[in-house]
Amino acid sequence: MNPTLKRVIFAIAGAAAGLLISFIFFADLNKGDQNASANQSKAEKVFVPYGEKDEYYMMASGGHSGQLFVYGLPSMRKIRTVPVFTPDPATGYGYDAKSKEMLGGYTWGDFHHPAISETAGDYDGQFLFANDVGNNRVAAVDLETFHTVDIMSLPNMGGPHAGVFVTENTEYIALPTRFARPLDGQFAPLDDYESEYKGVVSMTTFDREAKKFDLAYQIVLPPWSYDLSDAGKKMSSDWIVMTTYNTEFATTNLEINASQNDRDYIVLLNWKELEKQVAAGNYKDVNGAKMIDPREHKGAIYAVPVAKSPHGVDVTPDGTRFIAAGKLAPMMTVFSFQKAFDAIEKGEFTDEKYGIPVLNYEDVMEREVDPPGALGPLHTQFDDRGNAFNTMFISSEVVKWNVDTGEVIDRQPSYFSPGHAAATEGDTVSPDGKWLVALNKIAKDNFLSVGPSHPESMDLYDISGDKMEHIMAVPVDPEPHYAQIIHRDKIKTITVYPKDEARPNSVWKQDDARIERNGNEVHVYGIAMRSRFIFDAKADRPDAVTVKQGDRVFFHMTNIDLDQDITHGFGINEYDLNFEVQPGQTSTLEFVADKAGVYPIYCTNFCSALHQEMSGYLLVEPK
Amino acid sequence: MNPTLKRVIFAIAGAAAGLLISFIFFADLNKGDQNASANQSKAEKVFVPYGEKDEYYMMASGGHSGQLFVYGLPSMRKIRTVPVFTPDPATGYGYDAKSKEMLGGYTWGDFHHPAISETAGDYDGQFLFANDVGNNRVAAVDLETFHTVDIMSLPNMGGPHAGVFVTENTEYIALPTRFARPLDGQFAPLDDYESEYKGVVSMTTFDREAKKFDLAYQIVLPPWSYDLSDAGKKMSSDWIVMTTYNTEFATTNLEINASQNDRDYIVLLNWKELEKQVAAGNYKDVNGAKMIDPREHKGAIYAVPVAKSPHGVDVTPDGTRFIAAGKLAPMMTVFSFQKAFDAIEKGEFTDEKYGIPVLNYEDVMEREVDPPGALGPLHTQFDDRGNAFNTMFISSEVVKWNVDTGEVIDRQPSYFSPGHAAATEGDTVSPDGKWLVALNKIAKDNFLSVGPSHPESMDLYDISGDKMEHIMAVPVDPEPHYAQIIHRDKIKTITVYPKDEARPNSVWKQDDARIERNGNEVHVYGIAMRSRFIFDAKADRPDAVTVKQGDRVFFHMTNIDLDQDITHGFGINEYDLNFEVQPGQTSTLEFVADKAGVYPIYCTNFCSALHQEMSGYLLVEPK
Repeated sequence: MNPTLKRVIFAIAGAAAGLLISFIFFADLNKGDQNASANQSKAEKVFVPYGEKDEYYMMASGGHSGQLFVYGLPSMRKIRTVPVFTPDPATGYGYDAKSKEMLGGYTWGDFHHPAISETAGDYDGQFLFANDVGNNRVAAVDLETFHTVDIMSLPNMGGPHAGVFVTENTEYIALPTRFARPLDGQFAPLDDYESEYKGVVSMTTFDREAKKFDLAYQIVLPPWSYDLSDAGKKMSSDWIVMTTYNTEFATTNLEINASQNDRDYIVLLNWKELEKQVAAGNYKDVNGAKMIDPREHKGAIYAVPVAKSPHGVDVTPDGTRFIAAGKLAPMMTVFSFQKAFDAIEKGEFTDEKYGIPVLNYEDVMEREVDPPGALGPLHTQFDDRGNAFNTMFISSEVVKWNVDTGEVIDRQPSYFSPGHAAATEGDTVSPDGKWLVALNKIAKDNFLSVGPSHPESMDLYDISGDKMEHIMAVPVDPEPHYAQIIHRDKIKTITVYPKDEARPNSVWKQDDARIERNGNEVHVYGIAMRSRFIFDAKADRPDAVTVKQGDRVFFHMTNIDLDQDITHGFGINEYDLNFEVQPGQTSTLEFVADKAGVYPIYCTNFCSALHQEMSGYLLVEPK
Repeated sequence: MNPTLKRVIFAIAGAAAGLLISFIFFADLNKGDQNASANQSKAEKVFVPYGEKDEYYMMASGGHSGQLFVYGLPSMRKIRTVPVFTPDPATGYGYDAKSKEMLGGYTWGDFHHPAISETAGDYDGQFLFANDVGNNRVAAVDLETFHTVDIMSLPNMGGPHAGVFVTENTEYIALPTRFARPLDGQFAPLDDYESEYKGVVSMTTFDREAKKFDLAYQIVLPPWSYDLSDAGKKMSSDWIVMTTYNTEFATTNLEINASQNDRDYIVLLNWKELEKQVAAGNYKDVNGAKMIDPREHKGAIYAVPVAKSPHGVDVTPDGTRFIAAGKLAPMMTVFSFQKAFDAIEKGEFTDEKYGIPVLNYEDVMEREVDPPGALGPLHTQFDDRGNAFNTMFISSEVVKWNVDTGEVIDRQPSYFSPGHAAATEGDTVSPDGKWLVALNKIAKDNFLSVGPSHPESMDLYDISGDKMEHIMAVPVDPEPHYAQIIHRDKIKTITVYPKDEARPNSVWKQDDARIERNGNEVHVYGIAMRSRFIFDAKADRPDAVTVKQGDRVFFHMTNIDLDQDITHGFGINEYDLNFEVQPGQTSTLEFVADKAGVYPIYCTNFCSALHQEMSGYLLVEPK
């Protein structure tokens, strides 16, 4: 059959199935009295009364907002937007010198997949890592403060979509590329795609003490697209699995040309083995990265055929299996790590691609699970009783099935087209089987309308029983791609930054606030406190700063209110500047005073009954 | 008594009262079984089951985020962040040519007080206006699309905090300044504050057809600080009332020096009279603004003394009274418009300040309402039964009282320190008395902790009964200052932008997609559709664009998917660019291709099962 025709038929069938299921679901939800009582019970499940807290944090990607969205579960209320890849005046992120430098001049990122740091395969709640598909970066958020503490740019990449996922003890944070590009930022025409364009995997490490990334090494791969990856666990903990699409090497109109092959690949990487190769010097330096090439360095990279254009591949909590969800093939495929290891040991390969031995599908595959009418499987999550949960993008539902038997246990509709799902502690060796959230794509207008672009939505399911229970759908800003859900007991925050008198530029005594001039640099060592700024303790007006037009001005501000939640903002009217200092924090704002005149300075973050009075002036004398 | 000492005693007393009330409240909420049933009932009140929608939109300011936060009531779930003063890659705002120009190079704003357009004193649901205290701007959001459609910079202003409020038929959107500055961007030292610094009120108009602001005129006032204002209604509809503080002309340490006088002023402006003076040419041109000076043009501006440092002044729904809430004086003061008009007519003034006749407090005041222990009143809202609701910042509660009698009817604690409150339809001539939301400042750690900066919080009260019922507290990103709540029936959105073939740069047929070169300008007239980009219909690769390093590139993109919620994003990897086209929309991205190499282009907003395949390339040939 003509592939375009096939695609059309497939799409229509999918839409029809989705409609039918939505209809049944909707009808079911309108049964009257019976429903009133069901809604009452649902309402109680998610209501968090005053004085109590949510049980889980959901750390959701903010997509092309570039930020991290933190939700509470089960209330599903958003608790905080944590800026990661995009400046955020609400917290001054990207304005103070440190965060501005971290952002490196970029104004946005495309944050797809958060990963919480792990110890022995469990979320340890210390750090959260994020990928930037837009501008090829990786970031770390410190979960003591919920502040982004490091961002690293990755060379040779074209959108590290298939990250981030961490190995069992966070030895590596892996980021495979989505779009093939020529290495080293070189130019090459698309006619040379197969020879000159490459897929690259970045293996980064993170020093928890120094709070710093390092690019350990990269792996050059054929110009396939890498969609999602996962790290092994327990018996498979040395391995990483990654999905591929566009093994057709299409360079245009991918919606048709990259969907031709019946099979794409899951790529298996042995990072312990690759680490040895790097240690042995078996790499080339490419644009500052240690690059390993499977054509030259064997024994660490293999491929397994998989149903076409898979989106996700996920490792089971016990580490014995990896499950691919075939976006364009209506089934989940369970693969056995042991079978793969056996085949590798026996050297039973059917082919070699770009130096990568290809295993026989039948040798590694354990089971194909194909629930009738379930279309567009995207992502697999797990509970604590051996079950898997798959989102079905096209038939708009979640399917629960048993990993050992393949038995389909339950199917529940979702609000609209679900992409990823996140279960409580779902990516660990010990998921707890309480809640599942489906992160939906596209939305019909079931929330209050805000114009042509509808709110995205998320579905909350109670998965603690045999059957799943759909509790509610909630709106969300664009656009969570993935989330991880961690129990609140694992997150240990600080309330106030420690009073560190040795901290550079910090000022803790009011009398020490001062202004120092050095040529055309003006350094203000100042204090923010309830409810005033002190820039120069000895001046008649301690809250005014006079500079000359063209001076480079540094405001080094310390917040000496060592009290819960007393954050001070610092905005300069008409100068397009705003940053903040949290309790006990010291931050620096640097700018050139290029406009003459009088500019009010004021606290932008409500801090006390006299917050409105917390202001001063920047006076810029004309040249 | 020494004023500092007074202040300290006051603060301690306030904190103690707040603690006591919080304690009683908290104790009350932990009474066990009785509570379980109360919580059940609260849970049901706010649960919006699948298939149903919230009844109200709450349009909340996003403070120094610069954005509008849209919530649904009663669920209190955030539905959408609408970018207004700050770029937002999640929607491409500030990246496409039109919104980039509107932002004028500014990267943030400080959005304090939203105002929905009114007709005959009722919200008409057409537009929402916003002030930018940070960078002196006013913005309009079209509530058909929830898109910002115009932003105007205001000359001579120093933070238009006391806006925006609209007159009864949106004749004017008024913005009084908060910080006094020299006019016309001039430099003057702080020693010349009283003579050279000015407070300015901007009176702007908005053309609903052209969707454009105009600055009608400005009023120069003494260098007091203007905090909040409100427009009259019905019998008072020609008038505007504004609060002042720092009538002491303090230039440093305002927390003490601007709190010396026992009385500040409410300023009354007759905008109908001012309009006539402008029409008669009674103004000076200052920096492009028609400036009226009360020292020269009499008969439109008056002042009434009021308890020190008031925050809010609000006009009652029937327009007969204005109520000041004295931040540093523990009472609400009810003033009578009729009494003010009578005194003005009789010419009974006690003083004149800067050409402004000062009325006698006793002549205009109708009632002082002083609930025992209620401290820090900030803002007044209304129901449909003659009652007012005041937030108490220091004693952390909401007080309900009768406007006609002054009788205190109920007091309910708030989560923490409430700033503004918003009642359903609360600023109109016909509030409906269903719900009240208190927007709190500072927070104790009663939500899941996200480090030293806690989530802000909002309290929801059911005000439909005699007594208020506190339903829940919900977290919110920094920092809503004020909100308006409008019934959903008044908001009429569009689903898809109309297919307008005459629209400049639009392309509706795939065959018309083309690339035109003009010198070093490259214009791409392209199409975004499920699931591909078409830049050049005649090329071998219609989704690739090749330019030369240094070219100025214009992507004019039209989304021809005229379907609900099919928004396409457009990101260029490593080029720090991302914008979107909503269904039926045409937008332009303009940039200089200054980096040579190969840059993937991809759809950043999930649009279909083959969204991942919706990509192309920008090839930049090296110079």
